Amino acid sequence: MATGFERDALEGYAREKRSEYEGVLKKIVEIPSVSVEPERKGEVRRTAEYAVSLLESFGAKAKLYETKGHPIVHGRFERGPNYPTVTIYNHLDVQPAEGDDWKTKPFEFVREGDRYFGRGTTDDKGPAMTALFGARYAKERGVPLNIHFLWELEEEIGSPSFETAIRANAEDFATDTVVVSDTVWVSRARPACPAGLRGLQGFRFELQTGETDQHSGTAGGAARNPVAELCALIAECVDGKTGRVKIPGFYADVVPPTKKELEDLKKCGFTVKEFKKDHLFRSLRVHDALEVMKRIWTMPTFEVHGIAGGYQGPGVKTIIPPKATAIVSCRLVPDMDPKKIVKLVKSFVKKKNPDVVVSAEHELPAYQGKTTGPYADAIRGAMKFAFGKEPVFVREGGSIGAVLSMERVLKSPVYFLGLSLPEHGYHAPNENYDWMQASGGMAAFADYFRRLGEMKA
Amino acid sequence: MATGFERDALEGYAREKRSEYEGVLKKIVEIPSVSVEPERKGEVRRTAEYAVSLLESFGAKAKLYETKGHPIVHGRFERGPNYPTVTIYNHLDVQPAEGDDWKTKPFEFVREGDRYFGRGTTDDKGPAMTALFGARYAKERGVPLNIHFLWELEEEIGSPSFETAIRANAEDFATDTVVVSDTVWVSRARPACPAGLRGLQGFRFELQTGETDQHSGTAGGAARNPVAELCALIAECVDGKTGRVKIPGFYADVVPPTKKELEDLKKCGFTVKEFKKDHLFRSLRVHDALEVMKRIWTMPTFEVHGIAGGYQGPGVKTIIPPKATAIVSCRLVPDMDPKKIVKLVKSFVKKKNPDVVVSAEHELPAYQGKTTGPYADAIRGAMKFAFGKEPVFVREGGSIGAVLSMERVLKSPVYFLGLSLPEHGYHAPNENYDWMQASGGMAAFADYFRRLGEMKA
Repeated sequence: MATGFERDALEGYAREKRSEYEGVLKKIVEIPSVSVEPERKGEVRRTAEYAVSLLESFGAKAKLYETKGHPIVHGRFERGPNYPTVTIYNHLDVQPAEGDDWKTKPFEFVREGDRYFGRGTTDDKGPAMTALFGARYAKERGVPLNIHFLWELEEEIGSPSFETAIRANAEDFATDTVVVSDTVWVSRARPACPAGLRGLQGFRFELQTGETDQHSGTAGGAARNPVAELCALIAECVDGKTGRVKIPGFYADVVPPTKKELEDLKKCGFTVKEFKKDHLFRSLRVHDALEVMKRIWTMPTFEVHGIAGGYQGPGVKTIIPPKATAIVSCRLVPDMDPKKIVKLVKSFVKKKNPDVVVSAEHELPAYQGKTTGPYADAIRGAMKFAFGKEPVFVREGGSIGAVLSMERVLKSPVYFLGLSLPEHGYHAPNENYDWMQASGGMAAFADYFRRLGEMKA
Repeated sequence: MATGFERDALEGYAREKRSEYEGVLKKIVEIPSVSVEPERKGEVRRTAEYAVSLLESFGAKAKLYETKGHPIVHGRFERGPNYPTVTIYNHLDVQPAEGDDWKTKPFEFVREGDRYFGRGTTDDKGPAMTALFGARYAKERGVPLNIHFLWELEEEIGSPSFETAIRANAEDFATDTVVVSDTVWVSRARPACPAGLRGLQGFRFELQTGETDQHSGTAGGAARNPVAELCALIAECVDGKTGRVKIPGFYADVVPPTKKELEDLKKCGFTVKEFKKDHLFRSLRVHDALEVMKRIWTMPTFEVHGIAGGYQGPGVKTIIPPKATAIVSCRLVPDMDPKKIVKLVKSFVKKKNPDVVVSAEHELPAYQGKTTGPYADAIRGAMKFAFGKEPVFVREGGSIGAVLSMERVLKSPVYFLGLSLPEHGYHAPNENYDWMQASGGMAAFADYFRRLGEMKA
């Protein structure tokens, strides 16, 4: 084994660099890079500019690439053209963070013991910084690799500019393999790596029947009610209680999990009790652990995120609103085709309520990854080295649009080394990350680079 | 006929007092007395205090009565204990006024030619001030009547304190008859007086399944979705397209309109085209004029005003919200009993989704008025005198909670002399009132008081 990659040495590195790590994470978490909010465009850019200067201060070459939307940041620890290249993918944009459920200010970095609170701490700024610290360690110890960083700023809006941008700069971004660090373990007790991601197809259903609010006394009964019509439409699309999608053909291309996959799921440490606790759910649609896993990882969904329009305040304001919008998305699994789902949904809605205008947003197919071969083995080994247990290969319910683009454009295999935990509150208020995952993650990345260096040597 | 009550004289009075009238209306419209908004409590009180000083400046005795909620204002032009008393009911609280659809500031009084814009101009501050000017004229010409003003400040929230307050002060408020000026004509072409009002029963349906927003990628499929469940529930309660209520027993006590009533409706000047234009509707549930009138005046409804909770912003934010609230109300007609409807709705919801918490708000039974006898004849005559045509007696789709309370407590018959027009935008953005209705209304009230004086003399 290359010198300096022993557990003790890596633990010492993490201890020594902890305050530097926290300083860097604080700085980047406190820039509110909410990619979905147009008024935050400047903050997203400021995040990218800070990331470039950060990479440079770590001794990397770094560059900001313009896209049609938010920029992309690329950094490189270059060893030389004859060495293999590994690229770490993270994203530095974050989800919106409004509402009263935050106990601390979402864009203020708050440390409480070993826990770090703030929007983006676990998704995905904390893991990005963890990988950077792990990579610097490996570089300083001379691993025979080029280590690249590909940091996106449009992940939370479905990566609309990513594929075009990496295609236009495919030479700069060329790599032998990619490791994505933006996924969640099943439980703290055991590392987990996804071997597949659900896709996503978003929709907005808009119905306009008037121009302004009207009084339900003077017009109610004859007037159309766009909220009631959208409720009926949603109820026609999905069984609200079971989640079963009622649109004919919706499940036609779903590949059910194999027997082997089901066996792996049973071993992954998932418990319904923990799942409920981590997500603060009062009850679930189903109660059996395997059934829950099948539903969140291997089955598609039709989810309504909200109904905009209409009265939202206290008491009862007896208006008939002029329009309403249902905000909806479907999670997709192999082999569902987003374009086919858009077609199915549009024609179903047209049949049920022709006045409803459907706009499709966020197309992302599902992704099926690999769990065998040297790269997968290196991840397995690095996780075991850092966290004491081999990871289980499961699936991930969420979507990372960039994954498919990287496979397609860079033509190199993509693997996952995620560090987030269920209790970190992914996309939720009081999002957090913790020092155990950060310090373990640094060791895991350093060891992963060592393995890749030895593998290719 | 008593001197000074000729058409010319009353037209002259209106012309002479126009700027005074506009000044008073401006002053009261610019106090944002939104009774449903707790933070406006002070403004509602300020309105009541202004109303007292206004009545006093008109030579009336006036008093502010405290209630458990917003105050009540009572004013009196006293002729003496041996004269009959007529009470004019209006309300001085208003609907909320938010949103981008207002072309002028809602709480700024804007005059454009003969039209007055601002929240409350037509509902009901404009008619209240009109009645006051008409009453002052009659008083100054010595009509042998006591004229009282009963101005409520909780009408828009269903008059929760009104009945208790008038019961506690029944001696002060004693009256021989009440005339309510808070209703809308069918069209400008012909005055209309309601001979019945729909009742109202409000509800909030709340479903909580978690504590905070969750990511639909990590939890979607197994997690319950409270918005989807409420959509399903709404769709079970009502046919969104036709408006047909599906709750068994809902229509059991509905008294259908008589043949005579249907004949009157056919003559009232209602056209679907005007109704659509006045309310800016793109389409309606039905297309026949009589069918529209039946639905808005003689049939009950189940209306969803909005679904609170969930994502409301731009794009698609893929959350599963922790809770959602459907804001709902039913318009009621004779002989429906609000308590029975609450029972029906609660037990239906409990059967369909036992986790949904139903809270009932705004109970108001429907009201059936009289169209014959001397008081109705006086209204008929006064309307014809002021506007050139006898009014049709129709129904009103809206609810005025105070009407039933006054009949019950004051034990005196209630009639209607409304001045609002469909194009005034009742409860809608760009609410307005106009000088034709104000000046005609002053004449109608003055003439009404003359007739009452002669009738009792």
